[in-house]
Order: sequence, then structure tokens, then C-alpha cells
Amino acid sequence: MTPHPSSLPLQSWVQEIRLSEPSLKDNTADADRLWLALAARLGPSEQHPSTDWDILYSLPDMLRKSAYAVQAVLFHDTFRPVLVDILPLADPSPVYGIAVDLGTTRIVIRLVDLKTRSVCGETAFDNPQIAIGPDILSRVHYSSNIDGGLERLQQDAIDGLNREIAGLCLAAGSNPERVFLMSVSGNTTMSHFFLGLSPYHLIREPYIPVVNRPPIVSANQLGLKLRPTAKVFVFPNIGSYFGGDLISGILHSGLHRREETALLVDVGTNAEVVLGNASWMMACAGAAGPALEGGVTRMGMMAGAGAIDRVDIHPETGQLVIHTIGDQKPKGICGSGIIDLAACLFRKGFIDVRGKLVPSACGNRLMDREGILAFRIVDASDSATGEALFLTQADIDSLIRSKAAMYTILETLTATVGMTPQELQSVLIAGTFGMFINPVSAITIGMIPDLPLERYRAIGNSSLEGATLVLIQPEVMTEIPNIQRNITYMELNVNADFMNRFSAAKFLPHTDPKLFPSVNRKPIDNADGPVAN
Amino acid sequence: MTPHPSSLPLQSWVQEIRLSEPSLKDNTADADRLWLALAARLGPSEQHPSTDWDILYSLPDMLRKSAYAVQAVLFHDTFRPVLVDILPLADPSPVYGIAVDLGTTRIVIRLVDLKTRSVCGETAFDNPQIAIGPDILSRVHYSSNIDGGLERLQQDAIDGLNREIAGLCLAAGSNPERVFLMSVSGNTTMSHFFLGLSPYHLIREPYIPVVNRPPIVSANQLGLKLRPTAKVFVFPNIGSYFGGDLISGILHSGLHRREETALLVDVGTNAEVVLGNASWMMACAGAAGPALEGGVTRMGMMAGAGAIDRVDIHPETGQLVIHTIGDQKPKGICGSGIIDLAACLFRKGFIDVRGKLVPSACGNRLMDREGILAFRIVDASDSATGEALFLTQADIDSLIRSKAAMYTILETLTATVGMTPQELQSVLIAGTFGMFINPVSAITIGMIPDLPLERYRAIGNSSLEGATLVLIQPEVMTEIPNIQRNITYMELNVNADFMNRFSAAKFLPHTDPKLFPSVNRKPIDNADGPVAN
Repeated sequence: MTPHPSSLPLQSWVQEIRLSEPSLKDNTADADRLWLALAARLGPSEQHPSTDWDILYSLPDMLRKSAYAVQAVLFHDTFRPVLVDILPLADPSPVYGIAVDLGTTRIVIRLVDLKTRSVCGETAFDNPQIAIGPDILSRVHYSSNIDGGLERLQQDAIDGLNREIAGLCLAAGSNPERVFLMSVSGNTTMSHFFLGLSPYHLIREPYIPVVNRPPIVSANQLGLKLRPTAKVFVFPNIGSYFGGDLISGILHSGLHRREETALLVDVGTNAEVVLGNASWMMACAGAAGPALEGGVTRMGMMAGAGAIDRVDIHPETGQLVIHTIGDQKPKGICGSGIIDLAACLFRKGFIDVRGKLVPSACGNRLMDREGILAFRIVDASDSATGEALFLTQADIDSLIRSKAAMYTILETLTATVGMTPQELQSVLIAGTFGMFINPVSAITIGMIPDLPLERYRAIGNSSLEGATLVLIQPEVMTEIPNIQRNITYMELNVNADFMNRFSAAKFLPHTDPKLFPSVNRKPIDNADGPVAN
Repeated sequence: MTPHPSSLPLQSWVQEIRLSEPSLKDNTADADRLWLALAARLGPSEQHPSTDWDILYSLPDMLRKSAYAVQAVLFHDTFRPVLVDILPLADPSPVYGIAVDLGTTRIVIRLVDLKTRSVCGETAFDNPQIAIGPDILSRVHYSSNIDGGLERLQQDAIDGLNREIAGLCLAAGSNPERVFLMSVSGNTTMSHFFLGLSPYHLIREPYIPVVNRPPIVSANQLGLKLRPTAKVFVFPNIGSYFGGDLISGILHSGLHRREETALLVDVGTNAEVVLGNASWMMACAGAAGPALEGGVTRMGMMAGAGAIDRVDIHPETGQLVIHTIGDQKPKGICGSGIIDLAACLFRKGFIDVRGKLVPSACGNRLMDREGILAFRIVDASDSATGEALFLTQADIDSLIRSKAAMYTILETLTATVGMTPQELQSVLIAGTFGMFINPVSAITIGMIPDLPLERYRAIGNSSLEGATLVLIQPEVMTEIPNIQRNITYMELNVNADFMNRFSAAKFLPHTDPKLFPSVNRKPIDNADGPVAN
């Protein structure tokens, strides 16, 4: 196959084109006339754009009515350009695209004006598939075991998208008929559900997707109620465990464009990590996230009003100071709060290097919860639920496994290319994890390497940003196959060193304190006053 | 756009492929695994094959059930390969294609075994659109003026094809479900009808087709009852007057592969002529045929039982000797018979160099038919109709205009590249005209240049042969855009010399006898005995 062109010379997916009028001396057909004009725009290395027959049926009238002055709406499936639609040049209405971050739990969509190349709106909603199964595995089983299960999962996502897109368009004073393009970034299983492809083999050895690089698909065919000609691009995946959301994230991060080696970390249910630069990329993923998501710790909750999202030690009193989202009475604790809390407990000596609660330090905050030691964070009188909020030893153990997994992933990955985590010059942290966790706390518990803070950068919802980029900067489309091609995916569970490293990383911050010089292992304060709100 | 590869390295459209089985070390997705294997077959210059979503939906099960040993049915739209279907390697049934010569009057189809690369059957039937209009123009008006007219024209052709294809498959012990590919060669208007594209602008200045190079189309979409995945290739056209049938004919003739300059002539309603070689081709077309088709002369008829198809002068008696198809009593005269007859009449001095009947020579065979001179070919007692068969002066005048047009086209075309018709080394004559006319007669009346007979070669139904070639020799597919690109089409009605040359060519054989040295201008015999049968 032809090596892919390095860039697409389009500024926008909407191209204004004035065709020369046909004459006896130039009797090129209508469609071929248009394709020739597009070829000039697309550049010499691009293929002939694929064109639906419906466009050909209406083209002769359309061209003559618009006096051969048109707007061509283009797209690209990373293999080949696609002519999506043709509008009169004089059509003043906006031409929209929708960028989708198709999360297992949340779906975020953006309305993008393809002509001005700007974001016009954004909304998020719970993935309607949650009603069928909260996690990926239960949905995969549903799709395989229930007749029509796959169709139901696909339909639920599509219905949700149709509803939310209509709302987003309405808010922008338009309607879904003006949505011509959609780019969808999701993990491999979510992408399979979205496309109606069976996920059966995704969860069975040797974990094979139906397709790595899905061809562009008609919105119509998926049941999406957009412009009838609308086309949908779904980011390619590299395997069951490395999805289009990560490819999209890399695209946004620019990792694949940098000379300097950098690390990209995206923590969701899995921690997905990519190390690399413009020449090569190594990726791996592991289950490092569960302890940070709602539902795993007994008091854990999704980030939301009343969730404890930050915990500090008061610099003067030495007391734990908690902060809740919305400054409401606390009703639970979210991921960033748990990491902060664990770091504070460690710094105060309430938990030791093995992550065990130290009764002598915890004093009356230590309680027995159904036979398990627990640390009382909030008294019953101060909580929104009327019950005290606790962090149990089991919760802490779970967190330690997660943080150890995360650090081990980074260590194993860097070791593969002869680096240590400490040599990383740039760490890009994607997702809400990156936006909200306090890196000092994460370093304190040894979750991430002890680097100068300026080497860390939060890059937001990189999956959504990558999907947006594809709509706003056509030229990035051709970078996607290069990203996909340049990534070497490393299976952690076949890596012999992983378990040794993992055991060493299960200490706070690590069995080797030299790796975390900034972490003050001596509790800074033993004061045990009441928690200030 | 990328310059097109010069050849496609496939021996057959059906490729046997044994995929490596996926493993933890090779977790390439099912579709991408197949595409990679296809890339190796298609060669480095070919694009990623386009693949319908229906194939992706069924691929995972299909691959596993067939233990990754499959037959891939491929096709190509001259832009890009197409993956048409995937079958288990063990599937023993034939994989068929249908080649179609989509004539205005007759449609000829062939059943082609794509694996053995051989023709398994052929049939011909009248174009059902004749019921709507006998000629192209009446059908174009019907399609523009009658609501649903275009759809009706399309449907009639498709219905006829469905019926005849089913019959052809049945005769081969199979059924249309086993037809995966179709290649269609027709003039530009017939191709537009077939594809459901409006022919409105084809007949209006500046005569613009909807499309020159139609993308490949689903058989389903056209209403063809073949394999649901079947794909249809329609030969590209160069303009309203130079259709896919000519491109197909050139492909069959090999004109575009020869070093030596040759001439290709295809006479139907129009005479379509191409002069050229591997480096360049000049083409033009003109109304040279009508006098040769049934319905134009009063006694004219299509070639069929009872038609006078050959006329000779008996070498001993000097009498006219007529031959009829099926050796039946004559009931009319077809094109080859008219040319023979005119040549004989000229050689016998019954018509003069201006093509006028010579009363003194014709004697009692000359009659008055409604005020017009007429030559009696067959007496009432000898004809199948019970009435005498005549050739009128008007018929002869019409033939002379046609033959003059034909010769002038050849002369103008050769002159454009600095040649004379007499310098032609190779003349390929396509169609029934080429199969049945006597070149000596055609030379005698000055219709074609006076060349040694061995320079003429009849190449049969080149439109059908070209359509067949595309199914049997995949590598020719990529020659088609080169043919299309290399042809310069010359508009005769804007050529200043044409009318002068035309006037000179309206004599028998020509005003300049030096151009036809082999033609004996002196009547060889003045005997006027009865016509022998």
C-alpha cells in the first residue's frame, strides 16, 4: 500500500470552490469536474475522494443552480478523502461537526463550526449503556448472551447521542441537519458497540478486535439523525486494550511530533501510558485506576457536589483540612481526595511505609468497622449523610495496589527503553485525574515519579480534544495512521520484571527511598486535632 | 492525485488467502489482518481496498469457521481496489461475473467463471427500452418529460438483465447468487440510464455527462438480483458521444498497447473511430451508420432470416447473385447487402460516379416508385413478401452520404496527425459491421481506404470483449484510466476541412481516383440478365 502522505493541505473540511463552466472545448463531466477541482485542493499525494451515489444523482442540477460556485464538505478516513456533500457557495448556514468522547461512563460531545473552526457548544451525559451494565465486561456479556443485545447497546448509545446532539444544535440556534461530520474517540469496546461490531473476541484470548482501522461510516447507517449525507470517523485502535481514545489523546498531546521523549498518562478504569517521541512510541495499560473511581472504596464516589476532593494538612495547626466540591457538607470522597488523604495520613504518620494504619498515631480516629480497622475522616454530625465517613484499611490497601501498579507501569515502560522514571523530562497527564489530583500528593504516596513539578502538565480530556482536533485541523487526520503504526504495545502480564517491581512499589512511597528524595518520610506533625472544614 | 499504477498484479479477481492465525504476539484485528494480506497481493502501488460494512459485521465468525483460509473476491473501480466478498477457501462453488454489452438496440451478456477465467455462457436480447423509444433521443426525451421516466428506463433494462442473467446462470447449473461482479460497457447515454443518472445535459450544448468515471456501484442499489455484495463496474466515457463501449473496444483491440499506429472503427448508429498507439490516441465520431441500419432504406432490415446479406456479380454470367441469411426467400436487405449491392451496381455501371442510377444501363430493372427512380433487386414472384424488392435513388443517396461521412472521418482524423488513410498499416473493424461487410465492396464504393486487405481485421463485438476482459484479466483494469486519459476527442462539426473533404468523398469511390487504385472504374460487364438466387 502507498505510504501515507504526511499531511493533508486543507485548512478546513469545508472548501469553497468555483468550477469553470463546461463548454464545447471543455466537456468534462460534472462529477469529474468537481473531482479535478478537489484534486487540486487535496494535493498530489491524495487519492480520488470517495463519493456517494446520492451526490452524483443531485449534482447536475445543484451545480447549474449554483452557477458552479459551491462549498464542498470533505472528510477523510485516514486512507482516502471522502466527499461528504456539496452546497451552494451562497448557502450561509453553518456547517457543523460533532466531536464525541465516547466514555464507558460519561459521553462528552462538542459542536464544532467547521467553517470558522471553532467550538460552539459542549455537553456531557451518562452513557445510557450503564443501565445495561455499569462496566465494560458486563456489557460485553450482555451483547453475547442476550438476543439483540449488541443492537440494544448500540441503539442506546445512538439514541443518547441523537437526543444530546439535537439539544446542542438547538442551543446554537441550528439543527442536526447541519451536522455533516462526526469524529468519535472511545476505547476499543465502546467503539465496537457504537459501530455494531461484535465485542465477543475482544475479551477472549488472544483478544482480537473486528477492525483496527474502521472505514468511515454513514451516520444514517448507524441510526444517527444528522444530515443524511453525514459521515462518521471512528478513531482506530491498536488492540483490545489500547483504543481510539488513546490514539486521539496522543494526537492532542503532540507526543508523536516532539523530538524529546515524553510520557503521556491517562487514568480511567485502566491506566494507559505512552512513552515516546516523533520516532517511536511504547505503550502499555494496566488496571491502576479502580481504587480511584467511585464505588470501590466504601465512601468513594464520583466527583460531584459534596465529594471530598482535596485534603490538606493545615500549615499552622497540623490538622487535616478537607474541601468538598460545592463547599457542601461531605457525603463521600472522590479519587483526588483519596490520594490527598493518603498522602496526608502518611505524612502525619497515621499510616506507615507499608500503608498500614498506625493505632498509636491515629488515636480516637481509629475505629473498627465490621472487623476492619478504619480511619474516621468526618464525624457523623459533620457529614451530609448523618453517618461518619471512614477510610478502611481495605480501602488503603486497594489504593496502594493501584498506586503501585501505576508506578510499576511507568518504571517497566521506561526500563524497556533504558530509562528510569526519574529521567523523564515531560509528563502529560490526561483526563480528570490529571486535572484534579495534586501531584505533590501523588508523589508522596509514590504513585508517580518524584520529578520537579514543572515537568508535569495536565492536558485535559485529551480524547475529546483529539476528536475536536480532527474536525478543526484536517491536516492532523493523516498523522493518525502514523501514530497507530509507530506504537509498540507492551503486554505487562507477560513481563517477567513486572511482579518484582510491583512488590517493591507497594511501599510508601517505595522500598527505595532514593527514588523519592522530595518525600519527607518523617511525619511532619503528629497533631491530631479535629478535621477543619 | 496519485498517478495510476500501470498494472494490477492479480491473475484472478478471486484470491485464495491463508491468513496467519491471531495470537497474543500478533493481535492485529480481523479486518486489518485481511487487508494486510490483500496489500501483499495487490502490490505496493495499490490503495487500501474499500470494504462494505456488511463484510466487517460477518468477518469474525466467517474467519474462525473457515480456520482463516478464505477466498477473497476483489474488484477495482480504476481508482481503488474493492473487497467484494469473502468466502471460505473450501467453498467449491463457482464465482461468476457477468460481462454486459449494453447496446441501444441489443444487449449481450456473458457469464464468466472468475476462477477458471473462462466464458461459460452468452445470450443476447433486445433492449427492453425499445418499447419506450427505438432510438436514444426519444428515450432521453421520455426520461426528461415523463415523471418517473428515467426510473422506468432504468428499471426496464435492469428487469431484462435480471431475467436473462437468471436464465444464463440456470443454464450453467447455478444461480445469480453466485454472480459477484459485473462489468458494463455501453454508450454514454445507455450507461446513464443504467445508473439512473439524468441524461438531460447529454443532448444539450455543451453536452455534459453527469460523470465520466462512475465509481463502482452496488448491484443491490441498482436493483440487480445478484449476490447481495455484488459490485458493478461501468466503463468510463469521454463525453456524450464517446462512451464506455468505445473505451472497452479499445481495451479489447489493444490499440493502446501497440507501438505502431492503428485505426479502430466501430460502426453502429454512429461511426466511432480511434487512431493511435501506445503514446497517443485521437478519436472522433459521426453519423455514418444510419443508411446501414434497418429502417432507413425502404427495403432495409436488421440482419436476420430472409435478409439479403451478400450480393455478387457472377464471374461467368455477369449476373447479380444474391444470398440471403438462412437461404430463404428474400424479404429485405441488411447493411452488408446494401454495400455489396451498391458496389456491384457501380461495377456494372448501373450507377455512375455520382451514385445516380443510369437508366440506359439498368434497363427494365429501373422503375418509378412514387416519383423516385428505383432499381428492382428481386421480382415480386421471387420475394418472400410477394412484392418486388427495390433500392431507390434516395436509398443510394443516403448510403453515399454515410460512406462519404465514414471516409471523411478517417481522412480528417489521419490528416490531423499528418497521415493519409492510405498510410494506415492496420485497421481494426469492430462490431457486426466488421464481421459481415465485404471489405472489397466497402473499398469499391469508397467507404474505407483502398488498402491491401490484410491490413483490415475484424475484431468482433469489441464492447462485449472488453467487458469480458475486465473480468478475466484483472491487470487490464488499470489500463482503462490510461486509455481515457490518452484520448483526444475531436469535434468534427467544428472542423473546417470536414465539409470540403465530405463533398469530395460523395463520389464513387472518390473525386480523386488515385486514392482508390484497386477500384476498377470501368464497368466490368454490362450484362443485364435476371438476378440469380
